[in-house]
Amino acid sequence: MKRERLQHNFSEWFSGILRSADIMETRYPVKGLFVWLPHGLKLRNSVFAIMRGLLEQSGHQEVLFPQLIPENIFRKEAEHIRGFEGQVYWVTHGGRDKLDVKLALRPTSETSIYPMFALWIRSHADLPIKIYQIVNIFRYETKMTKPMIRLREVTTFKEAHTAHAKSEEAEAQVLEAVNIYKRFFDELGVPYVVTKRPPWDTFAGAKYSIAFDTLAPDGRALQIGTVHNLEQNFARVYGLKYEALGGKQHYVYQTCYGVSERVIAAVMMAHGDDVGLCLPPHIAPIQVVIVPIPFKDREVPVEQIATAIKNELAAAGLRVHLDERDLRPGNKFYYWERRGVPLRLEVGPEDVKKEQVTAVRRDTGEKQAIPRGVLKTKVKQLLEGVTGDLRERAWNLFHASIKEAPDTETIKRVIQKRGGIVRAPWCGGKACGEALKEQTGWDLLGEEFDGRAPAGACPICSKRAKVSVLIARTY
Amino acid sequence: MKRERLQHNFSEWFSGILRSADIMETRYPVKGLFVWLPHGLKLRNSVFAIMRGLLEQSGHQEVLFPQLIPENIFRKEAEHIRGFEGQVYWVTHGGRDKLDVKLALRPTSETSIYPMFALWIRSHADLPIKIYQIVNIFRYETKMTKPMIRLREVTTFKEAHTAHAKSEEAEAQVLEAVNIYKRFFDELGVPYVVTKRPPWDTFAGAKYSIAFDTLAPDGRALQIGTVHNLEQNFARVYGLKYEALGGKQHYVYQTCYGVSERVIAAVMMAHGDDVGLCLPPHIAPIQVVIVPIPFKDREVPVEQIATAIKNELAAAGLRVHLDERDLRPGNKFYYWERRGVPLRLEVGPEDVKKEQVTAVRRDTGEKQAIPRGVLKTKVKQLLEGVTGDLRERAWNLFHASIKEAPDTETIKRVIQKRGGIVRAPWCGGKACGEALKEQTGWDLLGEEFDGRAPAGACPICSKRAKVSVLIARTY
Repeated sequence: MKRERLQHNFSEWFSGILRSADIMETRYPVKGLFVWLPHGLKLRNSVFAIMRGLLEQSGHQEVLFPQLIPENIFRKEAEHIRGFEGQVYWVTHGGRDKLDVKLALRPTSETSIYPMFALWIRSHADLPIKIYQIVNIFRYETKMTKPMIRLREVTTFKEAHTAHAKSEEAEAQVLEAVNIYKRFFDELGVPYVVTKRPPWDTFAGAKYSIAFDTLAPDGRALQIGTVHNLEQNFARVYGLKYEALGGKQHYVYQTCYGVSERVIAAVMMAHGDDVGLCLPPHIAPIQVVIVPIPFKDREVPVEQIATAIKNELAAAGLRVHLDERDLRPGNKFYYWERRGVPLRLEVGPEDVKKEQVTAVRRDTGEKQAIPRGVLKTKVKQLLEGVTGDLRERAWNLFHASIKEAPDTETIKRVIQKRGGIVRAPWCGGKACGEALKEQTGWDLLGEEFDGRAPAGACPICSKRAKVSVLIARTY
Repeated sequence: MKRERLQHNFSEWFSGILRSADIMETRYPVKGLFVWLPHGLKLRNSVFAIMRGLLEQSGHQEVLFPQLIPENIFRKEAEHIRGFEGQVYWVTHGGRDKLDVKLALRPTSETSIYPMFALWIRSHADLPIKIYQIVNIFRYETKMTKPMIRLREVTTFKEAHTAHAKSEEAEAQVLEAVNIYKRFFDELGVPYVVTKRPPWDTFAGAKYSIAFDTLAPDGRALQIGTVHNLEQNFARVYGLKYEALGGKQHYVYQTCYGVSERVIAAVMMAHGDDVGLCLPPHIAPIQVVIVPIPFKDREVPVEQIATAIKNELAAAGLRVHLDERDLRPGNKFYYWERRGVPLRLEVGPEDVKKEQVTAVRRDTGEKQAIPRGVLKTKVKQLLEGVTGDLRERAWNLFHASIKEAPDTETIKRVIQKRGGIVRAPWCGGKACGEALKEQTGWDLLGEEFDGRAPAGACPICSKRAKVSVLIARTY
């Protein structure tokens, strides 16, 4: 798998593949809005089906809240509004009427959901609440937009919201959420680091934020998931109180956590190569493509056998496609390679004669003959192998992009030269954090979560480091 | 099944059940916007999964278009804009900036999708296009709103859009769409009539519209699906041309068809009773609820056996729930009856002794003992029976609400007295149609589609009737 073009001209690779792999149409006539094409939407649906499964298993219930939030309710939490004010789209007119109260297109749903929590929470018995929804959200982005990564309409935002009786329960919920996200990204083979964001990068209205970052092939860090402990900030503003056993009223403790369609970009980046996509089999819309290789001179029923194979694999529960188009096999190969189909099966006259099928892995290009008698079993094995290998390769690449650096000059230079993430010792102080950011010119992802105890001293104050800080150029 | 309260006070029944069956929260602080609760959302998802299946089987591909449409593009099709102008929400500001071009919240997506069709359609080989999306749409309703039925945010709108080389192909597509919707509503056991809407009720920009209506328990007709032949109206405006074989440029022919979350209301109405919901098993979020009936005096392991039964049924692929709450069995019965769970299994000491389970059907209240040995098979049989019986009962009720009437006085009186649908002979003329509407005071659903040849004369012009017209009080 060559990743040269992918790494050296990532933006071009990404735009090219969106269209040629039938993922996204990028010519919609409004900045930051894009169209999901059929293959892309199937990929998106299977990725978010994994998320749904993980959330349901851990007791989250799916709901769906309105998209419009009245201005007066939206503006209740002061910090929250400060964080989002510049980014909110406002609906001011309905038909020919000016609205009495402006309506915000939700940039996130705390302010639409929590007023309902106030109606639902009465006593201890109503807690905890653990809900989630998968919705579109809007941000008036003034920076350069990019499909899936920086959008004005994020079409796919999974946000979970919880409420708890005790502070410890909210803390435990943060850990549960972090573990759910770890499992989610692990399933997808998307490597990540987890950090506690610095104060200036904390979610508007939260006590603290935990974030997941992966690396784009251009060496920049991409945030792909966040978990926030809201403490009682929103509870106080929206009056979310419960009656405890003794009869006393208490505010609840809350958390929220989100993942967006950026994760689809992360999957594409993590496993793609210069030819195009390379999708992990369990999320690939098509897992196996069969290409019949007819041969003029001989009367061999390749098409018939290809159809029989298709039916056999489909009956075994595989997502299989038989390409019967009137095109040369080589063109078909390339077509499906760009789309990332994990396994190709070729059926030619030679295969028919030997009662075999030729299998070609998308990720390695490895070719092998499979006897017809064991086809089903062998294909399933191969696909499982691909999933594991993709994950391992992605993590190896990722680990190789994380470097240690003891001082600001090295940090600055390493990221300048090769991108990636730098791990440095840090005293943990806010002032030193800000100085690190300023002196290196790069962004602090934050304090490494569950990180190793650091060796060395804070590059700014020279005190003994308490934590590791991760630094990168970010999206 | 009693349906007295349901019929005589439908509005109250409906609002009550939305909350008590965990379907919808209606207290969101903006008119016409509501919150889907977990049980309701699961129901909605399983209903639209059936729709997805039908569309995929017939070669439709799912896509997802942006929600915002720039004003200049939205306003291109004159009739369309006349039809929707009064109902469109406008985004005028992003952050603190006034937008250069106002953005419409899509009231339907012709004007966002067709400009992209213009980029995709080049030659005959690009046709037909058959796509669909399931999205939220917005209407600035000034009338009274009602959950699922009349909304400002329709959270769930399935819209399909097609483009064809020939007029006949678009006509054939209309028929395919009508057949898909028939199968869809038949699956759900929701009875319907199909009519060609009168000119004044045709979709803004269409040549003609076919619509599906069901009856609410209050006797009013509720439109639950529409199919439009757009001819070349939009194609001309958005420049959707293809190069035919001879090299000549032709405009394409288009159709579009939609179904919204109204169908969920239709399912609730069609099968509910005075106690609450009664859901067809194949779409019920929970198909079987198990209620253990402990008995103090005896040491019988009812809970253990209930758990074993739950595991057995779950392993057989059924959606089963074991209610272990510390409540009296009678309360649990009522709780699950309101939520419409099709089958209840009681496990009491007597059942344990006799190695049986007591099954109670939600729809009929029928009780029977099932020997443990045949439980799985028998439960599946029972559930299938419920599906068929619910469908049959709903259609019987519906047929009984369609009356024939030969003249305007009778039409007027019949609908006034008992609601329902009246079938009358009609010459098919627009003027007579308008006069019928005016003289009866009720709405013309339209000309019956695939209707029987009518006997009698047009009540207005007394000419021999050419078609049957269906008339009702509508939502």
